[in-house]
Amino acid sequence: MSNNLLQGKTGVIFGALDEQSIAWKVAERCHEEGAKIVLSNAPVAMRFGKINELGEKISAPIISADATSMEDLDKLFTGATEHFGGKIDFVLHSIGMSLNVRKGKSYTDLNYDFMSKTFDISAMSFHRVMQTLWKQEAMNDWGSIAALTYIAAQRVFPDYSEMAESKALLESFARSFGYHFGTRNHVRVNTVSQSPTWTTAGSGVKGFKEFFDYADKMSPLGNASAEACADYCVFLFSDLSKMVTMQNLYHDGGFSNMGMNPAVLGL
Amino acid sequence: MSNNLLQGKTGVIFGALDEQSIAWKVAERCHEEGAKIVLSNAPVAMRFGKINELGEKISAPIISADATSMEDLDKLFTGATEHFGGKIDFVLHSIGMSLNVRKGKSYTDLNYDFMSKTFDISAMSFHRVMQTLWKQEAMNDWGSIAALTYIAAQRVFPDYSEMAESKALLESFARSFGYHFGTRNHVRVNTVSQSPTWTTAGSGVKGFKEFFDYADKMSPLGNASAEACADYCVFLFSDLSKMVTMQNLYHDGGFSNMGMNPAVLGL
Amino acid sequence: MSNNLLQGKTGVIFGALDEQSIAWKVAERCHEEGAKIVLSNAPVAMRFGKINELGEKISAPIISADATSMEDLDKLFTGATEHFGGKIDFVLHSIGMSLNVRKGKSYTDLNYDFMSKTFDISAMSFHRVMQTLWKQEAMNDWGSIAALTYIAAQRVFPDYSEMAESKALLESFARSFGYHFGTRNHVRVNTVSQSPTWTTAGSGVKGFKEFFDYADKMSPLGNASAEACADYCVFLFSDLSKMVTMQNLYHDGGFSNMGMNPAVLGL
Amino acid sequence: MSNNLLQGKTGVIFGALDEQSIAWKVAERCHEEGAKIVLSNAPVAMRFGKINELGEKISAPIISADATSMEDLDKLFTGATEHFGGKIDFVLHSIGMSLNVRKGKSYTDLNYDFMSKTFDISAMSFHRVMQTLWKQEAMNDWGSIAALTYIAAQRVFPDYSEMAESKALLESFARSFGYHFGTRNHVRVNTVSQSPTWTTAGSGVKGFKEFFDYADKMSPLGNASAEACADYCVFLFSDLSKMVTMQNLYHDGGFSNMGMNPAVLGL
Repeated sequence: MSNNLLQGKTGVIFGALDEQSIAWKVAERCHEEGAKIVLSNAPVAMRFGKINELGEKISAPIISADATSMEDLDKLFTGATEHFGGKIDFVLHSIGMSLNVRKGKSYTDLNYDFMSKTFDISAMSFHRVMQTLWKQEAMNDWGSIAALTYIAAQRVFPDYSEMAESKALLESFARSFGYHFGTRNHVRVNTVSQSPTWTTAGSGVKGFKEFFDYADKMSPLGNASAEACADYCVFLFSDLSKMVTMQNLYHDGGFSNMGMNPAVLGL
Repeated sequence: MSNNLLQGKTGVIFGALDEQSIAWKVAERCHEEGAKIVLSNAPVAMRFGKINELGEKISAPIISADATSMEDLDKLFTGATEHFGGKIDFVLHSIGMSLNVRKGKSYTDLNYDFMSKTFDISAMSFHRVMQTLWKQEAMNDWGSIAALTYIAAQRVFPDYSEMAESKALLESFARSFGYHFGTRNHVRVNTVSQSPTWTTAGSGVKGFKEFFDYADKMSPLGNASAEACADYCVFLFSDLSKMVTMQNLYHDGGFSNMGMNPAVLGL
Repeated sequence: MSNNLLQGKTGVIFGALDEQSIAWKVAERCHEEGAKIVLSNAPVAMRFGKINELGEKISAPIISADATSMEDLDKLFTGATEHFGGKIDFVLHSIGMSLNVRKGKSYTDLNYDFMSKTFDISAMSFHRVMQTLWKQEAMNDWGSIAALTYIAAQRVFPDYSEMAESKALLESFARSFGYHFGTRNHVRVNTVSQSPTWTTAGSGVKGFKEFFDYADKMSPLGNASAEACADYCVFLFSDLSKMVTMQNLYHDGGFSNMGMNPAVLGL
Repeated sequence: MSNNLLQGKTGVIFGALDEQSIAWKVAERCHEEGAKIVLSNAPVAMRFGKINELGEKISAPIISADATSMEDLDKLFTGATEHFGGKIDFVLHSIGMSLNVRKGKSYTDLNYDFMSKTFDISAMSFHRVMQTLWKQEAMNDWGSIAALTYIAAQRVFPDYSEMAESKALLESFARSFGYHFGTRNHVRVNTVSQSPTWTTAGSGVKGFKEFFDYADKMSPLGNASAEACADYCVFLFSDLSKMVTMQNLYHDGGFSNMGMNPAVLGL
């Protein structure tokens, strides 16, 4: 069902891999709410994913871009504004990958070249995206930029490893760039700290099922689904959130403010 | 303009005094979005305010209630569910008053009877409201309860005096009751930490203009207006925020995450 | 062993009931470090407790005071400064009691007269203490005031009930009064957010053993003991913490920043 | 004056450049309190600084190390434990440098190679230090590791630029590694969020004087000096802080919890 919340708006969405991806759901919901979308993902992800399917479904062109390449990002946003025939209203960053986790390195035995690469892919890419948008003056005034994050940036979940640091970085970029974009263009920048979500990416992490279940029991409303996150992103891209910026926003069924839930202890 | 975000929903709104009140704007916007509303305010506020005007405008009955009286609250919610012919989907608590501030007592010379009364009016009233709703089982599943607060609950604004403590209390009640309401009914409870706002209540506080201007300059987007807050509350009462609970949500143009803004220093 | 960290300093310590009390340990350690102490507790606690034993052991006079009575507090601090022959360097507030918990009322069925009384005893008493010290100008410049609190002020532990709100209040008073005392006298005011502790008071709370064990497993260093807390308070009263103020300080073995500990899940 | 708080303890201190450095003061105070020290700094800093002077004064060998080189760190800690004839009790990380700031790049025009290098020097170096200590099993049980940070990790100070992100990273490493070190060795890891300080490094940053003065006025106790920070670090390395871990600790005269200070507005 549509409330036309994004009628006439234009958005670029990174990170839709397959129909389990949060970014995929966000793209569908934004389309439903009236937005015109451009999709982007890394060249390698596009080979394995089904993004073309999504593109057809919501009439969105797909412009592949390595989010660590300034040249690719430059082309992407030039392409997007050409396609829209105007500037961009919203952008979703849903990109993250840890080389050390993938290689099975423990947190006390990390490889620092991998770490640098992880940070570049998962966090610096967000600054790269914003810096490109900034220089191209590609965002409409009062636009909205958001990135997906996780509470491991605040508290320790051992298996999350260096992704905790990646998310801490990501959230800091949101605050810092949010100041600049807010001051110049009234553009807001926020991060959404989402429940653990059953995606192709997430479910591959070691111990994922355990902390998914733990979080689900700990949260009075249970874990927030990818669909609920998509609804939430619609809000963030709509005019209802115009004055919210530089925030890390928990979308997590209450997990973040629980100290102990008797349900976890089986009481 | 309406997006029908609250079509078919019912809500009780406390604290509309006059057209400057945030609660007034919220009631108007909720009506616009399709909700049926019941208004409530303290008997004394009703004598001085213009709430009847608002009631007529949005076809909302007005049920006066002293929010520190369990009997009044009981009647209010019984009356509301009768009027709606069903349970309640959302509630806004916008109630606050400091006796010590009103009497001009400084923070180092507070009267404790006044303080207890301030806490009862400004914060315990929120627990009273929720406890009444709980016992009457008056909330629909997946409903939404919200209260207005201020960042003085986290950081010191000396002129805010004992209202800082009132808001700290209020926010704690939201978390605690949010756990219970979430677990039993999937009802969410949040507080909105709003920019200083030009209302009849706010503008009467000593030093208000100074901290309004200071906050406005400090915030990259400027202070959030009462109208913007009303939009935000529509979101909180809509299905877009279903999984957000037990949060204190900054609606403040970025104020809360600024450390120093060159604009404040006149740089 | 003593490091003479409090040589020549004078302090008033509230809340020593028996040798399990944190306040008891703090008094002993402060004495060991060279401080002169005055002990205080509520008249009723003094009848049941063994505070006289402690008084003799550390040569500290005991001045009973109901911390909700301005008259009693006035006499206490007058008595203390007379005893010391000078002003006070540090004060520990370790007072808390919930009538609703004691009466077995659930959080969704609280009695509001009890609640007001709980807040007065557990939190407003801290403002009362500071206001009395302020008016008597009884604190030495660069003195230190501290109160014990619990993380339930930030996150929900259902069994903690209205004590969560009491602690939220308490911490807010520390911030607010910390501003005034800092500005006038360079006196610092902080709260110590301590692990669950096996005291006569704590262990009586329903579900205490469960959340003690849970917290112990969740914390990489385990729960902090009353003895460790006493060491920490020595630091807070010493010159090593001169520039720390208006903070809520976690003394909890790392609990507060853990999101999930495999040890809790038995992994 | 000494309280023998670190009698018999051994520590490695990074980052003493000249007598204005916080690390310099910390080394002096730790020596005064009875600790044996090994000093380290980057080869380039050693050429320009006066660290040899300090080494002689406190009888501490100096082992130069590039904190981004695992080989150098390995040699450093091997050398330190050899010198001490045993393991290490505490480590201070006081290392930070932004290439983009040094090159005058604005936050919306950053160079990403510089950024990666900044992160490596200012933050990943902390993980490198801990990973080396971990693998060498060089820390004594119940030891203490600390790093200096700044509140720009939480709130925006525009001139701080990418150092905000560096500090966010640094603080996250403290939490994450704190879990591992706490669980295996009861070693605690914390960051100290210090007031702006007049050091050779700090005072070179653009706009430093303005935010120094602003912070000084905003803080009820004024800015914390390097000397006060040294006292605070003595506490962190002493047994008084045994149960404090994974915390970011504000040592800032109250700055972090002020919302508005009338002194800033000249009221």
